[in-house]
Amino acid sequence: MSKSFRIGIAGLGTVGVGVVKIIQKNADLLEQRCGRPIEIICVSARSKDKDRGVDLSAYEWVDNTEDMAGIDGIDAVVELVGGSEGVAYSLTKQALENGVHVVTANKALVANHGYELASLAEGRDVSLSYEAAVAGGIPVIKALREGFAANRISSIYGILNGTCNYILTDMRETGAEFEDSLVEAQEKGYAEADPSFDIDGVDAGHKICLLASIAFGVKPEFSAVRMTGIRRITGIDIKFAGELGYKLKLLGIARDQGGKLNISVEPCLVPNSSPLAAIEDVYNAVFINGDFVDTPLLTGRGAGEGPTASAVVADIIDLARGFKVPTFGIPADKLKDPVFIDQGEILARYYLRLSVVDQPGVIADVSAILRDYNISIESMVQHGRAPGQAVSVVMTTHKTKYIDIESSCVLIAELETLLDFPCVMRLEDEL
Amino acid sequence: MSKSFRIGIAGLGTVGVGVVKIIQKNADLLEQRCGRPIEIICVSARSKDKDRGVDLSAYEWVDNTEDMAGIDGIDAVVELVGGSEGVAYSLTKQALENGVHVVTANKALVANHGYELASLAEGRDVSLSYEAAVAGGIPVIKALREGFAANRISSIYGILNGTCNYILTDMRETGAEFEDSLVEAQEKGYAEADPSFDIDGVDAGHKICLLASIAFGVKPEFSAVRMTGIRRITGIDIKFAGELGYKLKLLGIARDQGGKLNISVEPCLVPNSSPLAAIEDVYNAVFINGDFVDTPLLTGRGAGEGPTASAVVADIIDLARGFKVPTFGIPADKLKDPVFIDQGEILARYYLRLSVVDQPGVIADVSAILRDYNISIESMVQHGRAPGQAVSVVMTTHKTKYIDIESSCVLIAELETLLDFPCVMRLEDEL
Repeated sequence: MSKSFRIGIAGLGTVGVGVVKIIQKNADLLEQRCGRPIEIICVSARSKDKDRGVDLSAYEWVDNTEDMAGIDGIDAVVELVGGSEGVAYSLTKQALENGVHVVTANKALVANHGYELASLAEGRDVSLSYEAAVAGGIPVIKALREGFAANRISSIYGILNGTCNYILTDMRETGAEFEDSLVEAQEKGYAEADPSFDIDGVDAGHKICLLASIAFGVKPEFSAVRMTGIRRITGIDIKFAGELGYKLKLLGIARDQGGKLNISVEPCLVPNSSPLAAIEDVYNAVFINGDFVDTPLLTGRGAGEGPTASAVVADIIDLARGFKVPTFGIPADKLKDPVFIDQGEILARYYLRLSVVDQPGVIADVSAILRDYNISIESMVQHGRAPGQAVSVVMTTHKTKYIDIESSCVLIAELETLLDFPCVMRLEDEL
Repeated sequence: MSKSFRIGIAGLGTVGVGVVKIIQKNADLLEQRCGRPIEIICVSARSKDKDRGVDLSAYEWVDNTEDMAGIDGIDAVVELVGGSEGVAYSLTKQALENGVHVVTANKALVANHGYELASLAEGRDVSLSYEAAVAGGIPVIKALREGFAANRISSIYGILNGTCNYILTDMRETGAEFEDSLVEAQEKGYAEADPSFDIDGVDAGHKICLLASIAFGVKPEFSAVRMTGIRRITGIDIKFAGELGYKLKLLGIARDQGGKLNISVEPCLVPNSSPLAAIEDVYNAVFINGDFVDTPLLTGRGAGEGPTASAVVADIIDLARGFKVPTFGIPADKLKDPVFIDQGEILARYYLRLSVVDQPGVIADVSAILRDYNISIESMVQHGRAPGQAVSVVMTTHKTKYIDIESSCVLIAELETLLDFPCVMRLEDEL
């Protein structure tokens, strides 16, 4: 029998425990598939005594997590501590420096330090693997780096955050407002007590940053990802979107527009006929556009013990089989600095919702401003009448530059009849 | 610069030409991603002089295709000749024997000779790669062998034949009958002049046979795959299915029922709410059930020049990167002989359509027979009345063994009021 592949697991939260369960339950399968056993030699976490529902007695307990990088004979450190700095960062760096592979589910770590860590890993001929960092149950890192590697990728659109997708689905299905659906998500365990990372788009931002790096061969530059979350979305938006034939989805977008990149996270209107519109609840999906493969769509659970641990173990299997690909698909020293498109230059159709006082002349004023910026209105909806009261008016535009929408909204907001700054969202018709 | 990865392309039909196009157009990308250039050194096809729209002048022309296996310095033969026997088989065998990798899009070859060829490849430490053989634009072989390799797979359901899916979609959308939709598919280039391989389920049978081998670690045994095509499906079935909340899809099914395998291709009723129901036209999809990853769904184009060639080149990239996995995910000598479930023992819900003379007592007679086999009726639909004339009656059953459905249908068919043998199809509610 071949030598076992020896790993240490740092962090025994949901995912860490899931990894232990898989390696215990499917040991025979894994051995056949890898041609050698996968052996957990050590584990580490904050509390040694906590009952985690799995038997850890056969594994060495490492008191100081960072020491795992120096354990004798370890082939890979599985970093599940989390956070972009602190122990996660120092453990990963130390392991790679020691010539030990690192498998991680830590999107923040790789989005923030990916270039440095990739360079380090490749210099030591080891791997920094992170399939679990993006859409756990969907092997999208593998698909992009390997399955679609024959293609020049022009765009990626992803539903990458299950919490937001759950909230948006719940709002549409029940007519609830954002705050109520958030509470519902928290009660079901789909949202954290402090949900900001999810609902402000940061989590999806880390993920699309990583996918963009692989797709376009650029250094990950998380600070340049423009992120808009879903806090400002109201039941009215969901309803109007539905009437116009769309669903609201928080999309991670990575698009090559004439050699310049648009990498963002924002709520968008997606046509009901789009396969992305059918992705509901906590499910994730990634829609890829390649020059030969056309438009595959991969869907599955984005989080949770089983799917995320499954992705971690898939990375371990690759390493045990002796396979490694550069972190971002091409050698780190070949990664280019990303050139971003100016936000104002982004061409898209837009959805505008205006809160206005219902009185004659409002639409004429708004239309005149839009006309002055060469923005054509594609459709307009207003429900009922409430003379002198607040009403919502929704417009969709033809394709236009963001700078024109933004400038016109500044002027529209100054109209006396406007009660709030217009709500602007992208319409993604081509999905 | 590293040594190039040298390939020969045998067969210059649609896919072969697509492979040449990718390697020419995306040469720079491929070189970065592989760490070395991919170099076509020779090509071969029936006619040397045909204009294929790509420049082949730089490549050696091999007159006798089988000689490609012996070309000096070749790293991989790309077999795109097709057919399970003849040149495809002898070329593949000879190349593997010579220690040359083989990349193929040939599902018939691998489904029929996979075990022998895998053993040969592994004995020579080379790879038999066939990502393009199943659902071209979907990296499903890679997903099963690698991405989901941490999981024990319990079932796979695939829409694996674009021709059939196009025909069934067209029948539903236009109300056309099978023959008309087939002609439409032929006119659009989605069906061959002789469409039997597609519409009789043989093509999907090859594919599900391969997926089952990987999923369950068994030798491919194509002759044991039970295949039912779509020829007998009528507009009435499509209509009734719709009324009951289902769509008709030709599914490749690979299911582990208590340690015994059910591997088949058959038209099934899939609930409208299932993500598989949303896969229309020529698109393919594969729905996988794993013990940790849950139920990912991969969709994309199943055929065509670009997607299939993209899959072929993905295999080439893996090899150029130095990665190979055993043909069926575990070493050939570890593959088990599949143990199949007896067809009669398959538990499922069923759809029954009866052509009967509309006269009192028909339903009573049918119901009595079903009752005698312990089959409960879940719903029944009959439209309008036509006393003394032919009408269609549709029933759906609760879960029952196939043997009971089959036996009762034999008796039902003997009723005087029956005009034809009942049409029986599986209801796949759990998708």
